Amino acid sequence: MGNESRWRQRMAEIMTAALQAVDPGQAVRRQVRREGDWLYVAGQRYDLGEFERVFVVGGGKAGSPMALAVADVLGDRLTAGVVNVKHGYIAGRWQVSFGAHPSLPALQTDLSSHLRSPEPRLDIVEAGHPVPDAAGLAGAERIFRLLDGLTERDLVICLISGGGSALLPLPAAGITLDDLQALTTLLLRCGATINEFNAVRKHCSRLKGGQLARRAAPAALVCLILSDVVGSPLDTIASGPTVADPTTFADAYGVLERYGILEAVPDSIVAHLRRGLAGEVAETPKPGDPCFRRVQNVVIGDNRMAAHAAQARAQALGFRSQVLTTYVEGEAREVAKVCAALAKEMVESGTPLAPPACLILGGETTVTVRGQGRGGRNQELALAAALALDGWERTMVVSLATDGSDGPTDAAGAVATGSTVARARALGLDPAAHLANNDAYPFFAALGDLIFTGPTNTNVNDLVFVCAF
Amino acid sequence: MGNESRWRQRMAEIMTAALQAVDPGQAVRRQVRREGDWLYVAGQRYDLGEFERVFVVGGGKAGSPMALAVADVLGDRLTAGVVNVKHGYIAGRWQVSFGAHPSLPALQTDLSSHLRSPEPRLDIVEAGHPVPDAAGLAGAERIFRLLDGLTERDLVICLISGGGSALLPLPAAGITLDDLQALTTLLLRCGATINEFNAVRKHCSRLKGGQLARRAAPAALVCLILSDVVGSPLDTIASGPTVADPTTFADAYGVLERYGILEAVPDSIVAHLRRGLAGEVAETPKPGDPCFRRVQNVVIGDNRMAAHAAQARAQALGFRSQVLTTYVEGEAREVAKVCAALAKEMVESGTPLAPPACLILGGETTVTVRGQGRGGRNQELALAAALALDGWERTMVVSLATDGSDGPTDAAGAVATGSTVARARALGLDPAAHLANNDAYPFFAALGDLIFTGPTNTNVNDLVFVCAF
Repeated sequence: MGNESRWRQRMAEIMTAALQAVDPGQAVRRQVRREGDWLYVAGQRYDLGEFERVFVVGGGKAGSPMALAVADVLGDRLTAGVVNVKHGYIAGRWQVSFGAHPSLPALQTDLSSHLRSPEPRLDIVEAGHPVPDAAGLAGAERIFRLLDGLTERDLVICLISGGGSALLPLPAAGITLDDLQALTTLLLRCGATINEFNAVRKHCSRLKGGQLARRAAPAALVCLILSDVVGSPLDTIASGPTVADPTTFADAYGVLERYGILEAVPDSIVAHLRRGLAGEVAETPKPGDPCFRRVQNVVIGDNRMAAHAAQARAQALGFRSQVLTTYVEGEAREVAKVCAALAKEMVESGTPLAPPACLILGGETTVTVRGQGRGGRNQELALAAALALDGWERTMVVSLATDGSDGPTDAAGAVATGSTVARARALGLDPAAHLANNDAYPFFAALGDLIFTGPTNTNVNDLVFVCAF
Repeated sequence: MGNESRWRQRMAEIMTAALQAVDPGQAVRRQVRREGDWLYVAGQRYDLGEFERVFVVGGGKAGSPMALAVADVLGDRLTAGVVNVKHGYIAGRWQVSFGAHPSLPALQTDLSSHLRSPEPRLDIVEAGHPVPDAAGLAGAERIFRLLDGLTERDLVICLISGGGSALLPLPAAGITLDDLQALTTLLLRCGATINEFNAVRKHCSRLKGGQLARRAAPAALVCLILSDVVGSPLDTIASGPTVADPTTFADAYGVLERYGILEAVPDSIVAHLRRGLAGEVAETPKPGDPCFRRVQNVVIGDNRMAAHAAQARAQALGFRSQVLTTYVEGEAREVAKVCAALAKEMVESGTPLAPPACLILGGETTVTVRGQGRGGRNQELALAAALALDGWERTMVVSLATDGSDGPTDAAGAVATGSTVARARALGLDPAAHLANNDAYPFFAALGDLIFTGPTNTNVNDLVFVCAF
């Protein structure tokens, strides 16, 4: 255990580096800085002297720390702002630790003081997620009004992060939140792809699919995006409110037809789509639309950045390290076997890296729930990896949810080694039974092998570290 | 397609290099050579002048070309030999081709002339696999007799390859082939691990678990092994006839107890195991047993050798290439997603290798059969990869069964690219439906994307090539 605890300490440092790289506040500050009248955003320069007003809008789970950072950078030049965040996501601090919750102050006080000043120019609106609610609708309407009648002498900074789609609900005229919710349920059940889903969703909204950009035009618009979608396709993250939409009303209507749910979808939605088909409602803005002339979309954080930051820290600690992919998908317990296979080859033949080595994979696995237990996809991946690594000394697989919350648990993930199964059996635990019951949380809790971070307020999916020592 | 056909040609060259590296005859000749009175085996030297007789024994699907190569090397020094092979596996030639069977002569004539001479000193015995038969038993008995009463002035060369366990059936006294078959069925169904399975099997045999080595002692024994087991654990391949057995009669009996099959197992087997427990039957030889003093076990071919040969050829063709692992296990369609994720990252970010790049993974996936279609694990992996790669230009995933026969089909595998799904849809094929029905063969057959080699007579599991161009 002496050895293993040193390796855990190193893994904690590597995970900390990954999370710092995508910490919303730090990610904003890396890309946005002000020097007097100049605002620099990812290599592009804005002359604040040319702008009369600067607005901050947006939505997503990371909205609060992103907004705070932008407000700090803008200082006296912030005119007003509204950002929708998930209930309870006003503030947070995190720290990577194994086996027990980190003891951190519940609230980041400088943030709350900033937002709760007598005359806040920046409103953080707590709203419903994953089911949109009236608070979210009210916040989205305020944003919509804020963006009304802007001129070329206005600058809008839009902050988008995971959950932004549900947190910025602004249905088209005649459609209610309940209608949208009914639509969502039908689309999820019918087997539509994410692109088909988005084609419909964008055409039922007044903000999604580039419509926020059209509303803000002719103002200059900077959109800072913290990506929670594998591969970071801009038109998909939060349904792309500042990005041209390649899909049409015909596409959206075709999806409902193709999956045979035209009858089941609320009348208000079908009527709206038909108005769109008839040209009575404006299409979403397409690529090349002039409303995008002054739009700068910047991904300030994503899985790849976190993975590469982890790699750099691993190398600084003396590991050979490589990012293998940031596109991982698949059933967690099967992906785990491939991860175990990578670890085995490294200890056995030093391929692709000789120990001490740390391979990094990013993405988002899935769990087909068959049991009644507690866990999350990262804990399940770690449990399956533990079974595959049983007896393989000097191997380790660590799986981490970057938002600090893996599935419906308070753990961020778990760590598996070649000795996990033996230690568990000594405690009377049956690893295979826990896996069969999707019950990884109590398994790793008993071993002290859960990873806790507290809420990171960020989300760039998951990271898996495959190590050989 | 012009481009794609050039890439296929390169992949064919890479696969050919991999198969040549584990071609049974070539693999034997790389490790065994004779210079006058000296026989060199993997760096060890045998003085043929000190040996009166040289025997060749063994079993496995690759036994025929291995035996031919050894006979050629030994020349006039071969005294006698018996090698059990699978029915129909007397000879074979192979060539990698896409879409259609290679047109090759059915029989390798120099081999048949060698074996069918008027007085063959080397008998190739065709026997049953995967179900052992009387021919296999007769051959194994001849081998057992051949190894009787050897002295220190005898040299035995044992040839082991995939299928050797079933092809060398020599049950302990009182146990019939039918009894063994009933045992096998019970062990497969009860959920025993491969190690538990082998503990029982070795203790019901007169050759397995190091007992061939004990029979041959005090002769010198060289065992040439072509490994079809992931990771090449010597005591597992063909149940390790020349390798010390760490398991005991108590272990074997305990397995039957633990899985509650003691009542169901044939009486002859239970009685034999009880005699073993009572010390009335000799234990299998354990590590350190003097019978292993003059034993040299040499793995002449395995998945890793094939993978590294593929890597070398890929690099010679100008690819960046890396072997990621040779321990791949898991459900084929899920492993496919990880392979697709690797290809995406390479075309998107040049990580871990910049295009043109070829990552190589080896191992053996599994398919949980739910449909009624035709296919094999490699074809299923390719089909799932095609779905995951849909629209990703300049990507390719190729999956190959090194024995040339993927599942119950005449194809060795298939190739998937970012355009596979589009080409299939243009032909009216539904890729997801074919995958759901485990029906990859007709899918790839229609596209001309099956890989055919003919029977390679070797088996080092599967290879997956993940490419970005």
